[in-house]
Amino acid sequence: MSSAQRVTRPQPSILNEDECSGFQTAMEIIGRRWTGAILLALARGSERFGEVLRVVDGLSDPMLSRRLKELEAEGLVNRTVVPTTPVQIRYELTGRGRDLIVALQPLVRWGMVSRGKH
Amino acid sequence: MSSAQRVTRPQPSILNEDECSGFQTAMEIIGRRWTGAILLALARGSERFGEVLRVVDGLSDPMLSRRLKELEAEGLVNRTVVPTTPVQIRYELTGRGRDLIVALQPLVRWGMVSRGKH
Repeated sequence: MSSAQRVTRPQPSILNEDECSGFQTAMEIIGRRWTGAILLALARGSERFGEVLRVVDGLSDPMLSRRLKELEAEGLVNRTVVPTTPVQIRYELTGRGRDLIVALQPLVRWGMVSRGKH
Repeated sequence: MSSAQRVTRPQPSILNEDECSGFQTAMEIIGRRWTGAILLALARGSERFGEVLRVVDGLSDPMLSRRLKELEAEGLVNRTVVPTTPVQIRYELTGRGRDLIVALQPLVRWGMVSRGKH
């Protein structure tokens, strides 16, 4: 739903605009392939690029690189350069990223329960 | 993640398989464009095809038809033929559909809060 569509729509909507936008915002992030798995890996304690790559089946090196950049730009992941020799790069969830993981739990549980039922 | 990949993967994964599957199941459904808005419209009391069409901005007739069939096949929506003259078709969420709406609330709230912040 673009903002242009919202402005020009001919009929009143019973849907709460803030909720629609909230859902859209969340889906734009977690709807991208691999993003959920990467966030979950970081939530479970993976910190290094290679660790995330190892625990997420089928994830490629360039795709992880791309997704981490996106997540950093969205304020969900922090990237820290540790000044060792050689330098180490560490990734961790921000507070907002951790909040997302918490918010996803009921949905994950719903999927787990309904998977067996359908 | 296909089941073939899960069976043959060379490294142990720290990700809980049930949780991954639960997330995948949920995303396969709500990740499809319009599905979230249609479920929300039904949750808010829309019952007729035309009502849903009216309250979801930009949704086309054939797309709503397609999505309702999918949601019915997935056990999220019930379709009832009311034997009036002419017959009326009514749609409503199943218990599983209502559970999904409840499970989505924290994610929607997260999106609403973080929309302003980023």
